[in-house]
Parts: sequence; structure tokens; C-alpha cells
Amino acid sequence: MSKLRFAMFGTGFWSWYQLAGWVETGEVECVALYNRTKDKALKLAERFGIPATSVYDDPAALLANEKLDFVDICTNVETHFPFTQMAAAQGLAVVCQKPMAVTLDECERLVETCRSAGVALYINENWRWQHAIRQYKRALDSERIGRVFRAHIDYRNSFPVFDNQPFLKELEQFILTDIGSHILDTARYLFGDAVTLYCQTARVHPDIKGEDVATVMLTTESGATVICSMSYATR
Amino acid sequence: MSKLRFAMFGTGFWSWYQLAGWVETGEVECVALYNRTKDKALKLAERFGIPATSVYDDPAALLANEKLDFVDICTNVETHFPFTQMAAAQGLAVVCQKPMAVTLDECERLVETCRSAGVALYINENWRWQHAIRQYKRALDSERIGRVFRAHIDYRNSFPVFDNQPFLKELEQFILTDIGSHILDTARYLFGDAVTLYCQTARVHPDIKGEDVATVMLTTESGATVICSMSYATR
Repeated sequence: MSKLRFAMFGTGFWSWYQLAGWVETGEVECVALYNRTKDKALKLAERFGIPATSVYDDPAALLANEKLDFVDICTNVETHFPFTQMAAAQGLAVVCQKPMAVTLDECERLVETCRSAGVALYINENWRWQHAIRQYKRALDSERIGRVFRAHIDYRNSFPVFDNQPFLKELEQFILTDIGSHILDTARYLFGDAVTLYCQTARVHPDIKGEDVATVMLTTESGATVICSMSYATR
Repeated sequence: MSKLRFAMFGTGFWSWYQLAGWVETGEVECVALYNRTKDKALKLAERFGIPATSVYDDPAALLANEKLDFVDICTNVETHFPFTQMAAAQGLAVVCQKPMAVTLDECERLVETCRSAGVALYINENWRWQHAIRQYKRALDSERIGRVFRAHIDYRNSFPVFDNQPFLKELEQFILTDIGSHILDTARYLFGDAVTLYCQTARVHPDIKGEDVATVMLTTESGATVICSMSYATR
């Protein structure tokens, strides 16, 4: 079987890890890159042996010129909606980084667009695929742990997240976007879909726009209470 | 100074500890006991050298016959309201076990009654006086800990609480009444009064009327989020 051909949109911090992961599968081939700052894309291209002629700072030009099976969208969240729309319009499948989009309305419209276009849309929620979390899920399913009536998921640290990704300081909702989407997807995977959700947030870092502390309390379909405590401001 | 004279209302499980505590102060004297089951009261009277003639199963008769400075109400929560009203009507100060009363309306009426009667009303919230909690409060006040933006208070065990106090199985709200009043008072003492409160409950023991799991999320005046996790069903 020939390798699936794809373009990566976005060549920032995570794209280096993402592209290394794709190479490891041995089943796909990255044939083009898009980035708004072309210089950054050229560095990634060089590292992964992608010809400079397939590096773009215009997404429409990339989609017009390259023969693709899918696109991997690894840009900031505001662009997930327009880039997915563009790819779907070309009949291309989409893999898109979390969080899916900025608003629920945008998310619903993306699902509808991809459904109408007959293309697959995958949101890259990688935490639920981690080995430790799979093992934990297996233990839950085996009922070794018994009835789960309450669970705590804590992510609390002082990781210097803004050093690698300074644009995160500008997010209206920072920790809920950045780590919250992982934590909440993991909560949903382990304990079931939420039927109620309650949240409190706080800003501790003085120089950011959004919040760096969030506490979310869910009730799941099974009646469990799940408390997710998140912080990038804990020493 | 002569010792303050008081009557104890209720001679159940906790009254033995409560009365021993009063004796230890050396500044008060228990001169009469009330209990709906007189036999239980007589046992306590014997242990603490209170004459059998000052043991009652009629609270009105006790208040009519005995010369008192205050009453200590150590009965179940439903009786806190009527007994405090009776004592206040006699111009007696009241010490009353937590929780204060069954409803907020009853609590507010008790405050009003005691204020009008010019008698003191003390709710016996003992946790905030514990040495370890005082030490912790001192550390918070000294700002050694820094800004508190979130706190967790966990009380989770499988203590066989119903063995000593089987009537707790009949409470409409069990864990919030029993331990919740302590936990929430401690939260308030340490982190400030609540401006918002959100709560989820669950029943795990199959043979009780109320809930034995509660999760409370508060926001305090200072903007901190406080999560109180309680359970008598945790193994």
C-alpha cells in the first residue's frame, strides 16, 4: 500500500514532535508545509527532508498545488475553523490539534461541513491514548476498583509553559484551552460523558490575558462526581 | 468567682465527652440533665456525680425547677430550635451543638430570639479550635504560604459512624449535617466566608436515608476556590 500523503499546517513548537511521530508510523508521508512565517517552516522542511518548493505561507496555494490525502492542522486554535473548512472543500480528510475550535458553534459547524463533504475529521486528543491512562481505564472496566462515586484529576505545577509558547499569554481562556481540553477529554474517557459542569477560574500570573487556574466539577452519566484541578501557578 | 451552673440537654454518645470537657475547665458545674430516655441520663448522672433528683425527661420541668446560668444542648438537630427557644425564654444563655438547626430560617429565628431576649447563643463548632487547625491558620495569616487561590479539604474514610450513632441513618442529609458542618466551618475559618457554594452528593451505603458522599465547591471573599470532599464510603 502506498503511503498516505499529507501537508502539515503550522510549524511551531509541537509540530516538530508531531512530525517525528508521523515519520515513526512509516505509513504516511509529509509532502508539504504551511506556516504564516515561512522561515520557520523552511527549518522544519530541512530537518524532515521536505523540498523547499513545497513550503508555503499561503494555505490556498498549498491546497491548489499539492496532491494530498489529508492535512494535519497544528496551528493556533483560531485558525482550526477556517483551515478545516478549506481542506474539507478540497475533499481532504483532516487531523486537527485540540482544542477543536474557539466556540461550540464553530465545532458543530465543522462536524457538519466534514459530514457533508464526506471527509473524516479527527481531533488529536492524544492523552486518552497514553499507556498509563489506557491501563487505568482497563482497571476501571474490570471493576477491580469498584463503584467510582468520585474522582479527582489534578494537574498542578509551575511548568514555564510561556517560555516555549509565548502566544499562550494572549488567550482569552488559557489553561482551559491549553491543558483543560486534555484533562476534560481524559475525564470523559475514564468516567463517562458529563451531564453537568461547573467551573471556577483564577488568574495568578499577572502578565497574561486569560486564567492559569481552573477547577471543574463534572457529574457523569454514571452519577460520579469528577473534580479537575488545574494550575500553572502552583509552587 | 462562683462556678457557672448549667444543665445538659441530651445524654447520648457525645455528651460523655462534652461533660468530661466541661469538668476539665474547672469553671462550670453541671447541675441537671435532660434526656427523652431517662435511663440513659441516669447513667451519665451517676458517672459525673449529679443527683438523680436533677435528672429529667421533661425539659420544661427542668427549666422550672433548676437555678441555671446556661444550658448546653447536645441533642439531635431537630430539637435545637425548640430547646434553644425554651432556654432563651427563661433568660438563659445557650451553648448548642452543631449544626445549629435544620433550616436557614430556623437559624435566623434563633439568632433573633436570643438577641431579643438578651442572651448569648454559642454554636459549638469545635474544629476551628483544634491545635493543628489554629497552627495552620497562623501560617496562613503570616503569609508564609503566599496567596491561596485554591484549597482542598478532604475527609474521606470508612469510619463505622453508624455503629455509635445509628440514628444518623435516618437523617435526610447525613454527611453534610454530620461532618459537613465541621468541614465547612473550618473552610470558612481558614479561607474566609463563602460568596458562592456548589454541591454534589451521592449515597453509597444502601441502608441509609441521606447521602454519605458530598463534594462542595466554595468561592471565598478573597477569591479562593475551596473544594471540600467528604465521604464515609471510601475504602
